Amino acid sequence: MAEYFLLKEIVEMALAEDIVYGDKTTDAIFPRPVLATGKLIAKETLIVAGLELFQTVFSVLDPQIQFEVLVAQGKEAKEGACIGRVTGDGRALLKGERTALNFLQHLSGIATLTHQFVVLAAEGAQRNRTLPAIVDTRKTTPGLRVLEKEAVLLGGGLNHRFHLGDLVLIKDNHIALAKGIANAVRATRATLSHPLKIEVEVTNIKEAKEAIKSGADIIMLDNMSIPEIESAVALIRKTAPLTPIEVSGGINLKNVARVAQCGVDMISIGAITHSAPAVDISLEITDDKRNRVKRSKAI
Amino acid sequence: MAEYFLLKEIVEMALAEDIVYGDKTTDAIFPRPVLATGKLIAKETLIVAGLELFQTVFSVLDPQIQFEVLVAQGKEAKEGACIGRVTGDGRALLKGERTALNFLQHLSGIATLTHQFVVLAAEGAQRNRTLPAIVDTRKTTPGLRVLEKEAVLLGGGLNHRFHLGDLVLIKDNHIALAKGIANAVRATRATLSHPLKIEVEVTNIKEAKEAIKSGADIIMLDNMSIPEIESAVALIRKTAPLTPIEVSGGINLKNVARVAQCGVDMISIGAITHSAPAVDISLEITDDKRNRVKRSKAI
Amino acid sequence: MAEYFLLKEIVEMALAEDIVYGDKTTDAIFPRPVLATGKLIAKETLIVAGLELFQTVFSVLDPQIQFEVLVAQGKEAKEGACIGRVTGDGRALLKGERTALNFLQHLSGIATLTHQFVVLAAEGAQRNRTLPAIVDTRKTTPGLRVLEKEAVLLGGGLNHRFHLGDLVLIKDNHIALAKGIANAVRATRATLSHPLKIEVEVTNIKEAKEAIKSGADIIMLDNMSIPEIESAVALIRKTAPLTPIEVSGGINLKNVARVAQCGVDMISIGAITHSAPAVDISLEITDDKRNRVKRSKAI
Amino acid sequence: MAEYFLLKEIVEMALAEDIVYGDKTTDAIFPRPVLATGKLIAKETLIVAGLELFQTVFSVLDPQIQFEVLVAQGKEAKEGACIGRVTGDGRALLKGERTALNFLQHLSGIATLTHQFVVLAAEGAQRNRTLPAIVDTRKTTPGLRVLEKEAVLLGGGLNHRFHLGDLVLIKDNHIALAKGIANAVRATRATLSHPLKIEVEVTNIKEAKEAIKSGADIIMLDNMSIPEIESAVALIRKTAPLTPIEVSGGINLKNVARVAQCGVDMISIGAITHSAPAVDISLEITDDKRNRVKRSKAI
Amino acid sequence: MAEYFLLKEIVEMALAEDIVYGDKTTDAIFPRPVLATGKLIAKETLIVAGLELFQTVFSVLDPQIQFEVLVAQGKEAKEGACIGRVTGDGRALLKGERTALNFLQHLSGIATLTHQFVVLAAEGAQRNRTLPAIVDTRKTTPGLRVLEKEAVLLGGGLNHRFHLGDLVLIKDNHIALAKGIANAVRATRATLSHPLKIEVEVTNIKEAKEAIKSGADIIMLDNMSIPEIESAVALIRKTAPLTPIEVSGGINLKNVARVAQCGVDMISIGAITHSAPAVDISLEITDDKRNRVKRSKAI
Amino acid sequence: MAEYFLLKEIVEMALAEDIVYGDKTTDAIFPRPVLATGKLIAKETLIVAGLELFQTVFSVLDPQIQFEVLVAQGKEAKEGACIGRVTGDGRALLKGERTALNFLQHLSGIATLTHQFVVLAAEGAQRNRTLPAIVDTRKTTPGLRVLEKEAVLLGGGLNHRFHLGDLVLIKDNHIALAKGIANAVRATRATLSHPLKIEVEVTNIKEAKEAIKSGADIIMLDNMSIPEIESAVALIRKTAPLTPIEVSGGINLKNVARVAQCGVDMISIGAITHSAPAVDISLEITDDKRNRVKRSKAI
Repeated sequence: MAEYFLLKEIVEMALAEDIVYGDKTTDAIFPRPVLATGKLIAKETLIVAGLELFQTVFSVLDPQIQFEVLVAQGKEAKEGACIGRVTGDGRALLKGERTALNFLQHLSGIATLTHQFVVLAAEGAQRNRTLPAIVDTRKTTPGLRVLEKEAVLLGGGLNHRFHLGDLVLIKDNHIALAKGIANAVRATRATLSHPLKIEVEVTNIKEAKEAIKSGADIIMLDNMSIPEIESAVALIRKTAPLTPIEVSGGINLKNVARVAQCGVDMISIGAITHSAPAVDISLEITDDKRNRVKRSKAI
Repeated sequence: MAEYFLLKEIVEMALAEDIVYGDKTTDAIFPRPVLATGKLIAKETLIVAGLELFQTVFSVLDPQIQFEVLVAQGKEAKEGACIGRVTGDGRALLKGERTALNFLQHLSGIATLTHQFVVLAAEGAQRNRTLPAIVDTRKTTPGLRVLEKEAVLLGGGLNHRFHLGDLVLIKDNHIALAKGIANAVRATRATLSHPLKIEVEVTNIKEAKEAIKSGADIIMLDNMSIPEIESAVALIRKTAPLTPIEVSGGINLKNVARVAQCGVDMISIGAITHSAPAVDISLEITDDKRNRVKRSKAI
Repeated sequence: MAEYFLLKEIVEMALAEDIVYGDKTTDAIFPRPVLATGKLIAKETLIVAGLELFQTVFSVLDPQIQFEVLVAQGKEAKEGACIGRVTGDGRALLKGERTALNFLQHLSGIATLTHQFVVLAAEGAQRNRTLPAIVDTRKTTPGLRVLEKEAVLLGGGLNHRFHLGDLVLIKDNHIALAKGIANAVRATRATLSHPLKIEVEVTNIKEAKEAIKSGADIIMLDNMSIPEIESAVALIRKTAPLTPIEVSGGINLKNVARVAQCGVDMISIGAITHSAPAVDISLEITDDKRNRVKRSKAI
Repeated sequence: MAEYFLLKEIVEMALAEDIVYGDKTTDAIFPRPVLATGKLIAKETLIVAGLELFQTVFSVLDPQIQFEVLVAQGKEAKEGACIGRVTGDGRALLKGERTALNFLQHLSGIATLTHQFVVLAAEGAQRNRTLPAIVDTRKTTPGLRVLEKEAVLLGGGLNHRFHLGDLVLIKDNHIALAKGIANAVRATRATLSHPLKIEVEVTNIKEAKEAIKSGADIIMLDNMSIPEIESAVALIRKTAPLTPIEVSGGINLKNVARVAQCGVDMISIGAITHSAPAVDISLEITDDKRNRVKRSKAI
Repeated sequence: MAEYFLLKEIVEMALAEDIVYGDKTTDAIFPRPVLATGKLIAKETLIVAGLELFQTVFSVLDPQIQFEVLVAQGKEAKEGACIGRVTGDGRALLKGERTALNFLQHLSGIATLTHQFVVLAAEGAQRNRTLPAIVDTRKTTPGLRVLEKEAVLLGGGLNHRFHLGDLVLIKDNHIALAKGIANAVRATRATLSHPLKIEVEVTNIKEAKEAIKSGADIIMLDNMSIPEIESAVALIRKTAPLTPIEVSGGINLKNVARVAQCGVDMISIGAITHSAPAVDISLEITDDKRNRVKRSKAI
Repeated sequence: MAEYFLLKEIVEMALAEDIVYGDKTTDAIFPRPVLATGKLIAKETLIVAGLELFQTVFSVLDPQIQFEVLVAQGKEAKEGACIGRVTGDGRALLKGERTALNFLQHLSGIATLTHQFVVLAAEGAQRNRTLPAIVDTRKTTPGLRVLEKEAVLLGGGLNHRFHLGDLVLIKDNHIALAKGIANAVRATRATLSHPLKIEVEVTNIKEAKEAIKSGADIIMLDNMSIPEIESAVALIRKTAPLTPIEVSGGINLKNVARVAQCGVDMISIGAITHSAPAVDISLEITDDKRNRVKRSKAI
């Protein structure tokens, strides 16, 4: 849960991008405040994320604006549902609408796609005693990583590392240049204190054995076939029963249930952040006086 | 074409997000420089965008790094093609890889999806004398609007307004609160000098007539059916032959060709920026000494 | 009308410039709050601009400060008039006075000079059916463009383009290097969608003809003599009656009325932003207890 | 002399204001570099200031650009003189021209006006043994204070305090609220170490006597008539011969020589920074191949 | 006394360093607000400084938080004393505790060490008519200079210059390269107006004589022995009785009283800012409901 | 190893603090470049840290400056040793000296103090099979955490967590409010994926047992006596032999060896960052022409 002062900084950057030279339309038509209400309508079924950012956009533009949440973050909004209501000066609603929806639709898109993976993985894992976590990656939009990882949590997923400093992850290139897994693990352990874990990425059974032997804290099976994953899981569970196993590479909505049957602990999926389509949400602005509902669509 | 000092600022922000607490893996394993080469491989057919950002990531990390472009921006890279080569200290390659690919995959994704719309619209327009431009919207990722609009250009699209200050766009809500199109147009014209255009969004033939009468510079047909669009186009071409016509709302890869047959000038599509999936591109790092190719996949 | 969060950023930058190492005088003399009132007195007749900035300076220094506006922005304050009153901790008044006046005097200076041009142009245009707008240029103070252009509006002028991206303006150098007006216009039109206009700068009748033929949206007559302007206007009105005409170069308070007689649509004047002298405004601080009036003048 | 990294920051801010959404004209017309030369021509006689900023604009846009200075900063450029030459990619010249000239014309305007005061003061002081310094104030453009004070130096003036922390200046309001000059001076001295001076502003002979008695390091005569100034100078020279005397308030080009005759040490003038008109300087861009000279005038 | 908007900027930077990726512990355990109170306990006797920063940390995290000061800044808190109480959402207390204490312990450490020097110098000076000020240097922590100098004031010291622009200080290297003290002083005086003082650093009696002759405003005796200091003081008092004398170099808690006996005006000590150990202060958090006291110690 | 673009940002902030209003002394005396060399001399025996920052200061001020390292970072420089040499424009040396030394002396102070703890702990651990790491805390200087933690590594210590997001650390307050260790651990595990460890702070044997049972990844013994530590270590080694043990609270140079005898894995010490005195290092500047050595000491 990002602190407000950090959200405010991102929101002000985003608003500046849109309004630094003024809103020529709204400023010209409405020289004075106009009381208005906006209803957030889900145009498709979705998982809500990004409401704090949505609210922050309007509170930056007008500190008096009121916001009422009807569907909480992390919950499902059915198609047609009203997610929340924002009331205040209609000029702030018109000026902030596009920026606020840009955050909301993008982050709810991530939560929604994550949730789809979580549901499918749970179905696949029913035949198995291990429910794998759907986890994100560092394949995030530049500048929005913390927000996108929060949306993954709201969709029911968990977070993999946030940056290059909170986990050692030894990948194939590191292994090759360091001449073997054992060398690479040893080198990183020498400059690390105990608080950080060491994960090793392996691409076949032989490397998985070396990773176990090196004392890796987590083992990632990268781009393996289902049979290979099953063999690797069997091996690791037997020789290093406490070591979490992650699967990565090429997982999609079609194969995630099958992968989940393999009994792994984590399935990491870049697509939940880098390729989640925006979900369709609109802000319907009501002129309070005349009670007429209008669908506002910004370009 | 964004100036280098602006790209550098965005890249440094993105790198800081990933590396402000160090790269615990690379720094531990490689205490000294390692000469290496990375090949950018298209894992699917795509239109290239974002190469300046890709290069800037590495030049920020190591000013000595060399970059060779093999497929220029705006061009198609076939699946398996090598888009470019980057050579220098392998530590900079490992540290910057994920950030550089995040930019490249996202922006090439936008260019690629835009291009698909452009091709389909051109096919649809063959039966018609007007080739409509595929244009973007303000439905962009907070902080990346200028970059995403550049990617739309590279995909063959054109840019709609960049912010709330470079075009007057009078939407349904403005019209309603201002009591009619004529009032709204008059109010904006009073505070505007001649350099900016005024566009009016209309949702039916009656409003289209009012927009023409008000002297709108551009008319946007919003969320109309194909027959409605055709009627509106006929009306406008007859009474205001020089006024460009934009269509907006609900356009997708399936219906864009049909919309293009209607003879409009612009088709604006939010999805080309907010829902373009990242295209698959990998950076294969070669240890120069041993000439071994490795596929590097960052989490 | 710039949003408050943007004004606050500029004001905090300006205050930091003055007070980042403390106010050694005020802090030493007044260890505790002192209730005080400051009256803004116009020391010459002027058009008011910059009041939001003036207020923001004090609200940044003391959120409790009260501000009462007596002469609204865009209105004339006669010599000796009280423009407004600010009440609160006298320490905030003393610390912010100079910064607040720097904004107010500069921006009111711009509004006042603009207004003088507007009045003279209107007088000149009486003999003519076209009232030309007085418009600004990009000849603004680095960092203050948006504020200065707002002051031009308050003075009765209108705004020309805000930056290099909201209007195409093809100048003599562009034309020369592009080998002719037609080429230059064609090149820009190819990468532009419809929302932006294209203006062409011409220096003689021959170029004016080419500009008309190329389909320029606006024609600027640059540095022409009065007879040349009249010929050009006649030509353009005849062959392209809807094309707005701008005049630029060498316009001052002495010749603006004569230029306005020529029937052009816009007269652009760099001096209204880059050479407007600060108007004289003082803040007279009253110690509430003793009701004594003091004129505070900061160096 | 501001360090380059500080100039770069200001220049990048100014350029961003102009070019953050691209230069739609130049980018469209010139897809490839064009070698060009720009000559800086003084259109009126002036004192040069701001050349580092002028150069920095272009070096930010194109690190390869060459700059040759023909009239050094602080020197006079006669009308028609060539101040310098800049050679490089013509696109950088076109994009940076307006921003670079905005700095140069504003700062040279300050240097030029300062120089006029310096010359007149020197003439006035000929009848007197004390040559007064022309000094600036804190009446500067928000964000540009350091640059403007540098321009004052180049015009032959000297700098008064830069901010509220490098000199104690006790003004009338401070005195009133602190119940007398002696109290105010005593209060500030108690929290100050020796490195800072204390200046006291006085408005009549009685206050001047108190200021001398309090041990003020500098005495400022504020808004006094010529006879009052002469009396005060006589008094101070007699009783505190080492204490510098500053005159402030209402000094202009007409009366500065007379004030200088009074034998004061400093004459401070807000107008040299807040009301100096921009001087007229143009950048004439030559297409190297064809050697044709063009006068570029940006709006 | 730094203004709140400046403190807020520093505090937000410091908080971001700690919490930009979230507080994984607190956010997980406490999904909802928990009312709590924190007591600031001095674990050793100290002089309080940094309370505004301490408060600002919590007001940034939770605008509702209440703070009560029990020992004012600049006052002594005995070991075991309660310095203040902070009440509000326990999650803000837990998140901000370490950052708030980092400021408080560091700045109170500086105030405490400064105070020790002040007391010892006063004792030494009893035999002498001149009480020397303990002054700081520019040997401060990058980014915290203004805060550290405020802490010096709270400890009873005074401030030497804040930056390279508010005092001329001619050191041995300047003298050498300028070929003598007279030359150096003359060069600086030529570009200075009267508001700034000129201090000259001397290392022996000969140089002290030159400094006096040059008209230096302050003379610094650098790294001299006690007898040398005494000779220099005698000389300066005799020939330039109004010139303040500063001693610098190698002063510590053992020798400061002896130096103070020499009759100098200022003793400058780098250690009070660069080597003051943090004082021990803890925040004991009470769960209001159960009134149980817990000592919170953050790592 | 912080990347250069991050160091540059910190250095520019630090330089701005010192030089934003110019260096009045150096600029006045040296209007032209002066070739000079500075030798970095250790005035006491120390461990070197901060050299990249030292170099960056000068490269920001003068890109041409040459730097030669004679004692590498992490190595010991004996009293009197020359650590490095910097050659270039003497004006950059004079301007940057104080800022560069502020970084170097502070960070080398941390490395030196850390090293003293490391040596003593190693001596204590000789009687024991476990060599404990000396680790830092979050008790760092606001804004400098990454730099200070790098200095700890150079001194032979290791790093504890960098921020609130790279390790779960459940402290006494969390435990109390969550009603027991088991609850707190369970709550954090529910929202965590596998990459992060969970550390539990315990203050007695009973809590240590609960921590083991909860499955804590690391156990911290906080503020226990030596006999308590020994009992806790015996218990943990027996029941959870793979769980690392950290000791914290009240460790100093006198007792660290005794603590190290207890067989723990980590000893965390706030003092190595928050109370390390600056080490004494000077920059002796030589005028190349005359080869005279001067000791430069900045205030």
